[in-house]
Amino acid sequence: MARLVMKFGGTSVGDIDRIRNVARHVKREANAGNEVAVVVSAMAGRTNELVAWTREASPLHDAREYDTVVAAGEQISSGLLAISIQALGVNARSWQGWQIPIHTNNAHGAARIEEIDAALLRERIASGQVAVVSGFQGIGPDNRIATLGRGGSDTSAVALAAALEADRCDIYTDVDGVYTTDPRMEPRAGRLDKISFEEMLEMASLGAKVLQVRSVELAMVHGVRTFVRSSFDDPDNVPVGTGNQPVGTLICDEEEIVEKQVVTGIAYTKDEAQISLRRVPDKPGVSAAIFGPLADNHINVDMIVQSVSEDGSRTDMTFTVAEGDVTRASDILEKQKDEIAFEVLQSDTGLSKVSVIGIGMRSHAGVASTAFSALAGKGINIRAITTSEIKFSLLIDADYTELAVRTLHSVYDLNRG
Amino acid sequence: MARLVMKFGGTSVGDIDRIRNVARHVKREANAGNEVAVVVSAMAGRTNELVAWTREASPLHDAREYDTVVAAGEQISSGLLAISIQALGVNARSWQGWQIPIHTNNAHGAARIEEIDAALLRERIASGQVAVVSGFQGIGPDNRIATLGRGGSDTSAVALAAALEADRCDIYTDVDGVYTTDPRMEPRAGRLDKISFEEMLEMASLGAKVLQVRSVELAMVHGVRTFVRSSFDDPDNVPVGTGNQPVGTLICDEEEIVEKQVVTGIAYTKDEAQISLRRVPDKPGVSAAIFGPLADNHINVDMIVQSVSEDGSRTDMTFTVAEGDVTRASDILEKQKDEIAFEVLQSDTGLSKVSVIGIGMRSHAGVASTAFSALAGKGINIRAITTSEIKFSLLIDADYTELAVRTLHSVYDLNRG
Repeated sequence: MARLVMKFGGTSVGDIDRIRNVARHVKREANAGNEVAVVVSAMAGRTNELVAWTREASPLHDAREYDTVVAAGEQISSGLLAISIQALGVNARSWQGWQIPIHTNNAHGAARIEEIDAALLRERIASGQVAVVSGFQGIGPDNRIATLGRGGSDTSAVALAAALEADRCDIYTDVDGVYTTDPRMEPRAGRLDKISFEEMLEMASLGAKVLQVRSVELAMVHGVRTFVRSSFDDPDNVPVGTGNQPVGTLICDEEEIVEKQVVTGIAYTKDEAQISLRRVPDKPGVSAAIFGPLADNHINVDMIVQSVSEDGSRTDMTFTVAEGDVTRASDILEKQKDEIAFEVLQSDTGLSKVSVIGIGMRSHAGVASTAFSALAGKGINIRAITTSEIKFSLLIDADYTELAVRTLHSVYDLNRG
Repeated sequence: MARLVMKFGGTSVGDIDRIRNVARHVKREANAGNEVAVVVSAMAGRTNELVAWTREASPLHDAREYDTVVAAGEQISSGLLAISIQALGVNARSWQGWQIPIHTNNAHGAARIEEIDAALLRERIASGQVAVVSGFQGIGPDNRIATLGRGGSDTSAVALAAALEADRCDIYTDVDGVYTTDPRMEPRAGRLDKISFEEMLEMASLGAKVLQVRSVELAMVHGVRTFVRSSFDDPDNVPVGTGNQPVGTLICDEEEIVEKQVVTGIAYTKDEAQISLRRVPDKPGVSAAIFGPLADNHINVDMIVQSVSEDGSRTDMTFTVAEGDVTRASDILEKQKDEIAFEVLQSDTGLSKVSVIGIGMRSHAGVASTAFSALAGKGINIRAITTSEIKFSLLIDADYTELAVRTLHSVYDLNRG
């Protein structure tokens, strides 16, 4: 017997037939004696329809009314799923955010969960009643529905699992787990059985397709064992509960991972741009002068490389931004040219960032140098390097992305099949 | 300045353009300094879609989950209308049943409003904020959404008007008022400027198309002046507030109606059936023996005529039921033949009930005899007669319905144009 949170996304509840299939997954776990809470998204396409209506009503609409309209999508799917579970002879009921309640802050449209009063829910699931909880929503301090922003149902599920002290949070999705790299780029990518929270966060550029980054952060903070699995598996032909692990990827504390890989996966992001400010005065406050105005304009700066100046007076400052931000960022900096006192601004687009991730790196030296040699062997020029404890990232020309990913995937022995 | 409740049905909020038109009606009243609460139905067609989904999920679905799913329709339209009102520069917010709260009993799917805590709403509308309230829903004692049954938004509006002590409850619909009879049957039917609550209840067979009978009862009990008007009127070209009466029909206390008509309108219902039990013992308890089993089987009995027995021992009992119930009613009575001790059961279908309604009847004698002569003049046979203080009803062959309605409409001087 275990306490489980099961989360199903919009595709998994896209029509009544699929909702029935979800009900069979739920029935399997409930009939095995597990305590079950289910978190559902809106039926696929419904949220987009509701969002479009709010925009049509007014492009500049009130976020609180947007939340009221859009949260109706999950209200509908939670009710329909509860009915479908009941139709299989399993006791169930739906819960909206305000009924539990799931308290959020007042940031309508992109609210954060502040507290979940799970006492009533715990009592009900302990009595054998499946709780079908609307994802993506809670109730704000103004007693109005607040949504967590798109994709927020993953966050709902993890937060609920934390509040319920669940044994596992199962994220049912349209892929069967987290892979060593993007399988579309490297067909020999393999599914990971386990990955640590920290690694999953670094894999975000891959993982975001599977799981919202925010939900991984939350899972890490609360130690929620989160399991990514396929909703298309035959509901009656997979292991039940938390005994044998079904096909999928468990995101967990690194202590649970006995055999730590030096490299767990290769992630990448395309559409990177590089900006270099040449001959910037090498003195306190210059970084603030450069990055302050960019932050004020909501431009995310990623890799930052400051070259060591020859004479201690002038240096080059290089950093990356998303390609879509490069013109705006350059304009902002040119306007500050006198204050920053750089000589020339150079920018370059069409770049990619490739990252090598693994908690084993902490205890292994020379991991990065293997990458440098391997890429050099393929004639791939590295424009910038940043490192952290469990990851290093390399900036390269975007044309070489696939070659670099496949080379690194191979050199770190991740190829399967 | 007045306090107004404005109610708009599903057709009036069928798409974003129509919602914008509703917003203009609201703006007119709000900008004139009136305190405004708006009650909305779901967008036309949405409720049917949601109901169909619950049936597809399970034909025997939980009424509480049905309510959760279906109430989402009003949640969407209330949010969209609030956005559209805001877009016209008028302060507004949406309210769901649970937020006000509108307390109902526990009869999910067909709940009754028990109490409305209108304090917060009154404060807000007094401060100039338009309240956009989801119709058709409240919150039950189980803290779950409860719906009032189809068409319940009229009831929501009248109940809210009572709780807010509103000066008037405006029902915006797709007709411009209540007519002396069905204009499809008699083109010379005229719109009534005013009609008393009692008359409107009696006109139910007509009125139900305009206004739910239940909401008229509620309006009568609480003395809510209810105004039926068209949502297709140009929002910027009608009288504002409660000063000059716009085009429409005011349903009000009869004291407000200065010139009381002897006859206000002619109503009819088709598909009536008649059942006669011949030679029933004329003794106490026989009515209970007949009508008890019918009531137990939810068969509505309407006109009841008991003929005076010749010798004081046996009588004939005749009554009407809806045509769709006649077979079932006959079967039930035949099974009770020994207990009731009737000699023979006769039934007849293809009948109509035509009713003549008017509060002036109270003080005028001979109103009914005018009808008898007029119908006799057209060769229409009257099968049964029932009377009340402000109405009498005649059972006739359905083939003569139109002729009877037009004859009575003319003889009581209701023809216009």
